[in-house]
Amino acid sequence: MRVSVIRKAHFNAAHRLYRPDWSEERNREVFGLCSNPNFHGHNYELEVCVTGEVDEETGMVINLKDLKDIIYEEVERPFDHKNLNLDVEEFKDLIPTSEHFCYVIWQRLRKVLPSKFDLQVRLYETPRNFFEYPPRT
Amino acid sequence: MRVSVIRKAHFNAAHRLYRPDWSEERNREVFGLCSNPNFHGHNYELEVCVTGEVDEETGMVINLKDLKDIIYEEVERPFDHKNLNLDVEEFKDLIPTSEHFCYVIWQRLRKVLPSKFDLQVRLYETPRNFFEYPPRT
Amino acid sequence: MRVSVIRKAHFNAAHRLYRPDWSEERNREVFGLCSNPNFHGHNYELEVCVTGEVDEETGMVINLKDLKDIIYEEVERPFDHKNLNLDVEEFKDLIPTSEHFCYVIWQRLRKVLPSKFDLQVRLYETPRNFFEYPPRT
Amino acid sequence: MRVSVIRKAHFNAAHRLYRPDWSEERNREVFGLCSNPNFHGHNYELEVCVTGEVDEETGMVINLKDLKDIIYEEVERPFDHKNLNLDVEEFKDLIPTSEHFCYVIWQRLRKVLPSKFDLQVRLYETPRNFFEYPPRT
Amino acid sequence: MRVSVIRKAHFNAAHRLYRPDWSEERNREVFGLCSNPNFHGHNYELEVCVTGEVDEETGMVINLKDLKDIIYEEVERPFDHKNLNLDVEEFKDLIPTSEHFCYVIWQRLRKVLPSKFDLQVRLYETPRNFFEYPPRT
Amino acid sequence: MRVSVIRKAHFNAAHRLYRPDWSEERNREVFGLCSNPNFHGHNYELEVCVTGEVDEETGMVINLKDLKDIIYEEVERPFDHKNLNLDVEEFKDLIPTSEHFCYVIWQRLRKVLPSKFDLQVRLYETPRNFFEYPPRT
Repeated sequence: MRVSVIRKAHFNAAHRLYRPDWSEERNREVFGLCSNPNFHGHNYELEVCVTGEVDEETGMVINLKDLKDIIYEEVERPFDHKNLNLDVEEFKDLIPTSEHFCYVIWQRLRKVLPSKFDLQVRLYETPRNFFEYPPRT
Repeated sequence: MRVSVIRKAHFNAAHRLYRPDWSEERNREVFGLCSNPNFHGHNYELEVCVTGEVDEETGMVINLKDLKDIIYEEVERPFDHKNLNLDVEEFKDLIPTSEHFCYVIWQRLRKVLPSKFDLQVRLYETPRNFFEYPPRT
Repeated sequence: MRVSVIRKAHFNAAHRLYRPDWSEERNREVFGLCSNPNFHGHNYELEVCVTGEVDEETGMVINLKDLKDIIYEEVERPFDHKNLNLDVEEFKDLIPTSEHFCYVIWQRLRKVLPSKFDLQVRLYETPRNFFEYPPRT
Repeated sequence: MRVSVIRKAHFNAAHRLYRPDWSEERNREVFGLCSNPNFHGHNYELEVCVTGEVDEETGMVINLKDLKDIIYEEVERPFDHKNLNLDVEEFKDLIPTSEHFCYVIWQRLRKVLPSKFDLQVRLYETPRNFFEYPPRT
Repeated sequence: MRVSVIRKAHFNAAHRLYRPDWSEERNREVFGLCSNPNFHGHNYELEVCVTGEVDEETGMVINLKDLKDIIYEEVERPFDHKNLNLDVEEFKDLIPTSEHFCYVIWQRLRKVLPSKFDLQVRLYETPRNFFEYPPRT
Repeated sequence: MRVSVIRKAHFNAAHRLYRPDWSEERNREVFGLCSNPNFHGHNYELEVCVTGEVDEETGMVINLKDLKDIIYEEVERPFDHKNLNLDVEEFKDLIPTSEHFCYVIWQRLRKVLPSKFDLQVRLYETPRNFFEYPPRT
């Protein structure tokens, strides 16, 4: 029997959407207020979905304590109270849009999560905007 | 790389569930309080999910400003503070159940959204009742 | 020992803000979309706060089952799935703004609630607009 | 035309995660605080998703009143204000993890829901932990 | 300049409302399902409000890290994943209604919080029922 | 008759808690992760409460459209997508703690709101931390 288990986490960070090879005008046109030079920030809400077989002995797919620890190590510790553009290796040459951020988080979790589990990530940038990787379709 | 992007919107409207070819008794039996003759109403919450390739230059699937504008033009402007039964063309001969409403919204957005994007709609009628089109399965 | 006890309830209704002694233009100017002739509606969320002495025998201020029944009789039954302008006695000559609605609900509950209790009402018209009677200051 | 209809419900219960064939140490190691001998409890939030054809006459997939009644009979009545370990037949020999609980609820609803409908269940154990059956993948 | 600072916390516990000097019938009549013999439980949400002068050097009323630690020591550690009736000293001879629980939490926090601060506690038993001590009026 | 009217608003910003006259160690000790040099950020949620007489002609305390415009001009336009430390005049010599931020917002709104209204502000820095000015007691 397979079940999906979802754990929510919370962190906050600053970022800016900007391409140095574009003019200020083009940056402002495409990224709007998100291109403001001195950064802005968000309270990110994250949902990590792990799907797998229910262990016959424990009745659990994955111990939620372990999942919580993995999310702390791979997401909260590196990103919480950080500036995505300046403090995070993955965004040295990648615009920190939430599309990219969602994928970066999925990659980090995928590396450490046992391969028997399927993994999906949903990232809320604001209460009205959120993103999912892998995509629904 | 494909990602799903979801934008929430809010509007409110009045409606009534009623078939003129049925007796009052049958209407009341099937639609309950929702058939009350003088209408009732809801704060509708809408989630619009657009799935597509992440643009290599912008790092975005779709500019959220554009998605917000599309939702305003196709959903908020025609439906907000309206009476679905009396003010909306699509419900002249269609009962404004949330199943139908969800599909009507999907159709309106589908017409204007570029065909490279997949589209899913979730509509909350109340905090405890919501609807999705296309269906999950 | 006094404690405040708060119970939430939910109902929905249609309404319209409109003064028949004003021109259409003035109604539209003051009430905006809320004056639309065919009504619109809301999912109202209500919080009823009862403050009183904790009964030494039961450890309760008021039995929440009783409070739930009172809210059902005085608020949900008369207002749920109704048109405030057309179906509700109190609004025959009173504009159903949420300020007035909040006060009408408080009056109805005050009449049936034992006088040893203090009573406060908060009414959400939308998730972003809400009203309180008696006022905070 | 097929649409998915989702109804939320709420109930609360006590439980304990514990295997009598394990030592106290092993129970504590695997289940943590959840193995506390005198039980703890949760406010469970349930989302029941029914997918099916929209009825041409009523414009509904399933009458939400019927779905509400089914959820009351099969979930709220047997589980609300109960001790899952001591009061519930299904957990006499099954650890009441939320993975198992989610499946038990799905089974109960599946038995009474007409076979033309597809059924999915999401169960919130806390605001930060939730479970889905059938699984997403 | 004085400001109010509010911190939310979360824990869960089992309890039962019951007076041993009453008959089963009277317990059931007054406490309803809450008197079920094998306990039930809740996810409690707690809001702790501390009011005081803003420190001129730090710009803070109280360091939120310190407030978080106090709430952990005085509330989460003694109550989380516990049975209020069986595991908690304060409820040996006190019915664990939320009115009493709210006051017990306030007392515990009041003892350790510096006297220069005012203290208010709000306790959610379910998303629809909550309690405040000291009372609003 | 007086009623309280509350309007919610949303914006996001970056900030950093830091005193240049303190050592890095002391800043880290007092402000923790919030002193990170490259800023972090939040989705701020704001509740603005206006209390006043209900106008006999309109049935409103204040037109919510006007209140929405005032909040946009005085709060959203100057603070949304900004860096509080670098972009905001008021924080040139004031640490942007939420205590100070709450007071700054109150001051800005107080200046433009007619004096017949009482004004209260609640500011959510995260879903678990919020602040109120004037204070509750």
